[in-house]
Amino acid sequence: MNIAIVGTGLIGGSIGIRLKQTNFADKIVGIEKSETNQKKALQLGLVDEFQTLPEALQNCKIIVLTVPVDAIMELLPQLLDKATNQVIIDMGSTKTNILNLISEHPNRGRYVAAHPMAGTEYSGPEAAIPNLFKDKMMVYVEAFKTDEDAFELADALTEQLEMKTSFMTADEHDMHTAYVSHISHLTSFALALTVLEKEKSQGRIFELAGSGFQSTVRLAKSSPDMWTPIFKQNRSNVLEVLEEHIKQLQHIYDKINQEDYDAVHKWIKKSNKIKRIIK
Amino acid sequence: MNIAIVGTGLIGGSIGIRLKQTNFADKIVGIEKSETNQKKALQLGLVDEFQTLPEALQNCKIIVLTVPVDAIMELLPQLLDKATNQVIIDMGSTKTNILNLISEHPNRGRYVAAHPMAGTEYSGPEAAIPNLFKDKMMVYVEAFKTDEDAFELADALTEQLEMKTSFMTADEHDMHTAYVSHISHLTSFALALTVLEKEKSQGRIFELAGSGFQSTVRLAKSSPDMWTPIFKQNRSNVLEVLEEHIKQLQHIYDKINQEDYDAVHKWIKKSNKIKRIIK
Repeated sequence: MNIAIVGTGLIGGSIGIRLKQTNFADKIVGIEKSETNQKKALQLGLVDEFQTLPEALQNCKIIVLTVPVDAIMELLPQLLDKATNQVIIDMGSTKTNILNLISEHPNRGRYVAAHPMAGTEYSGPEAAIPNLFKDKMMVYVEAFKTDEDAFELADALTEQLEMKTSFMTADEHDMHTAYVSHISHLTSFALALTVLEKEKSQGRIFELAGSGFQSTVRLAKSSPDMWTPIFKQNRSNVLEVLEEHIKQLQHIYDKINQEDYDAVHKWIKKSNKIKRIIK
Repeated sequence: MNIAIVGTGLIGGSIGIRLKQTNFADKIVGIEKSETNQKKALQLGLVDEFQTLPEALQNCKIIVLTVPVDAIMELLPQLLDKATNQVIIDMGSTKTNILNLISEHPNRGRYVAAHPMAGTEYSGPEAAIPNLFKDKMMVYVEAFKTDEDAFELADALTEQLEMKTSFMTADEHDMHTAYVSHISHLTSFALALTVLEKEKSQGRIFELAGSGFQSTVRLAKSSPDMWTPIFKQNRSNVLEVLEEHIKQLQHIYDKINQEDYDAVHKWIKKSNKIKRIIK
């Protein structure tokens, strides 16, 4: 069985390198626009060879889409038009729009909507690592609409990646990711810019930056090509969580401004409940 | 030479355990209100024994203050009143108010304003670790107002902790820490609360939380007893950076709301410049 990976960056490359380790496929075929990235991916051994998308669709049983979500919106309908018994897995970070787009497609059953909750702030083939997915969560969205054999094959691939699994509706998925992933990126981007702006008048501002700052700002290294389409596709949820987050910050601004330090203490103490969630 | 550490939590305990490793002092004396923490600190070997503050002031050459900054504001003037040739080092996170408070004190020369840019989101004696300070930055504030022998002794202690050093005015220090430390804590507290609130209606909201979320929210485990006084003592800088940060978030809210994705892309790309600063 051959597997095609469309987009050989952080996610696609990490899938390729892991599947090559486990010998799950006879051949890992890459599909990649950028010639530079093709060369890098071959050098790094992320895939066995590159083909065009029509070639790959003919030669491969599984097609995994790991390109930005706007590109998936374009590619998926075309692929489903031509699909016969292949399995097409979309690994994008948003699901409602894409599922609406193909809900009535005659080949809907060949499509698996999946989202691996794994990543780093780095991108491109050089960022690929074999253990990126280990013990992380693979979310399946509207899995009940996928043909049973197609789902089984996708889930076998997930097992190769050593992931846990979870099932959700598209609405749940897009809201949950807005709250536990997309907002984290927005706050990091905003925090980086807040301090970078200050650097213009205070040249030494980063001298005291320690591990706390690094931790809250590291996601600001994430790719705009990947993240702009996510905010676009998940616009309403992203606006909701941003509004809530700004409200929290405005609340604490007001309390500090009013010198109501009892309220500040209570607010921090309440936020400490996050200990229950994260180690 | 004996060294007294007032407050044997994360910072004080980590200093104690490290100085015991290097045999820098004959004896490490702890001063600690909480009897529970006294027992823990002795069990963990953070200090050799506990004394009262007046005893310690008589028996020790160096007094290190690692209690919350409001407690330092109370303690420092009393200690300077009674100081003769001891060195009193304040390791608090804010400096302008404390320096204003004692600027005309006849024993000003015995006081060293220092701030180790090191810490974790944990607190208490159990959180103490010997290598907390290694390769981190010790900031000295208005060091030129300290007697030379007192500064030399404080700097020898800093060397034992294997820290780098930096010199600043109080205004610089308090502004810089607001931008690269205090705001990171505020965004983490706010982010934790944003998602904890959502959990009330969406019980599974944390199921998809991965390393990105953890990274941006881990500081929300920090102690309200430590952080409320910091926001109080550094109020004007904290309000400034909070205002700037909220502006950044409001800006990106507006751009996503207006569906101006070119502007979103540019904003993210600009924030990527943080790569220059953090690894």
